[in-house]
Amino acid sequence: MTRRRAGSELGGDRVEGRQAVRELLTAARRRVRTIWLAGERSPEIDELAELARRRGAEVRHVDRDQLAELARTESPQGVVAHADPIEPARFDTLLAEPSAFLVGLDGVADPQNLGAILRTAEVTGATGVVLPRHRAARVTPAAAKAAAGAIEYLPIATVAGMPAAIAQAARASVWTVGLDADGDVTVDDLAVADRPLMLIVGAEGSGLSRLARERCDVVARIPMRGNIGSLNVASAAAVACTTIARLRHGNLDTSSPE
Amino acid sequence: MTRRRAGSELGGDRVEGRQAVRELLTAARRRVRTIWLAGERSPEIDELAELARRRGAEVRHVDRDQLAELARTESPQGVVAHADPIEPARFDTLLAEPSAFLVGLDGVADPQNLGAILRTAEVTGATGVVLPRHRAARVTPAAAKAAAGAIEYLPIATVAGMPAAIAQAARASVWTVGLDADGDVTVDDLAVADRPLMLIVGAEGSGLSRLARERCDVVARIPMRGNIGSLNVASAAAVACTTIARLRHGNLDTSSPE
Repeated sequence: MTRRRAGSELGGDRVEGRQAVRELLTAARRRVRTIWLAGERSPEIDELAELARRRGAEVRHVDRDQLAELARTESPQGVVAHADPIEPARFDTLLAEPSAFLVGLDGVADPQNLGAILRTAEVTGATGVVLPRHRAARVTPAAAKAAAGAIEYLPIATVAGMPAAIAQAARASVWTVGLDADGDVTVDDLAVADRPLMLIVGAEGSGLSRLARERCDVVARIPMRGNIGSLNVASAAAVACTTIARLRHGNLDTSSPE
Repeated sequence: MTRRRAGSELGGDRVEGRQAVRELLTAARRRVRTIWLAGERSPEIDELAELARRRGAEVRHVDRDQLAELARTESPQGVVAHADPIEPARFDTLLAEPSAFLVGLDGVADPQNLGAILRTAEVTGATGVVLPRHRAARVTPAAAKAAAGAIEYLPIATVAGMPAAIAQAARASVWTVGLDADGDVTVDDLAVADRPLMLIVGAEGSGLSRLARERCDVVARIPMRGNIGSLNVASAAAVACTTIARLRHGNLDTSSPE
């Protein structure tokens, strides 16, 4: 029961948008209960229906108005799915991984930003994401859609609070790297990039909390020019995660067109 | 009159959100007509009112409901400004700059993505942004808010279409670099990064158009791992622009905390 409640708290049970639903169905990591489809029949819609049937989901064809009524995002692209909620990962398990590359989000509130960061984390080879329970970062339908399927593959752990999680990471010999415009080193010069690490990204506007910042082993910044002096939080996370991935693995990617 | 109409087409006359309005007032590049402020008096709100008065704008204090009625974004943070529209830059002027670093957006439709990319372009030292007129990428209030002030500093040119703009760039000896998950080289290995160049970013979902892709001198990709295989368009633009800035200028940033 506790386990189930924890899953419900993390959310992710409503998935909308074609890419997010396709990954939900192909990853096959959790039960898909119902899928609603609307709009013109097309090879893409037919493929989603077939995938859903193979996964044992109930497939319902509805009209566009009914789908709009059901949907909780602005443009569900004709597809809404109801699945079991995401099963959270254990933070201590994520910390124990020898090549841990975790991304902690301390107060990111906008679901589109949260989803984009989950997507970035999956694409850059992060081994997990850490969300504080008390700062309301749930995987809402809008976040799930923006994550474009990342939530099906990426382990997500919830913690009571980020400062305590940073202390726990330090005890587990995982380096903690805050991301802030006033950081001491640039992410390109991050000496611990290839060690087990947790990158911590602060809230939109206010950035890293004082306590989180104080507890981090290193605070890194993204080199900036120009006048306005700060990136959107999801853009900043994308730059930091890609830089860390490059420093860990070199430029060799695993999704080469060959 | 033509000049004025072109400006209206590009938009930017409604600016909402504290950071975007503060930059509008401090950059002082265009006339601010009216600023509406709501909510508790605070040093930040008082500072905005004072800045607006010094700029000759009419300052109106309204209650939160009135501001919500006026606002065209979901969270205007108590501040809405009405200004002259953005004056577009000339594309040929942007191309003629010896150190041109342009970002062309071919079909980016979501205002939050458009705004985040404008913000990224300003922060990474791009010398201009290029938007096609026919693909509806206007600087809406939501885009202006997400741009966080970048539109006050960054020259923005509109063109009839991106494929023709790519051909024009080539004639002006500006390298054209498409960004695509199937690119031939990684952005880290972009040999022309320190030459005059225009980076072209495609639409959400569909990516670069076939014609734009064919006309680019190089198509570059961001190295990726994991399963889902693509970044959000604004995240991808952030990684590409930051990488190009690093290759052009090294890691030395101009916003060092010292």
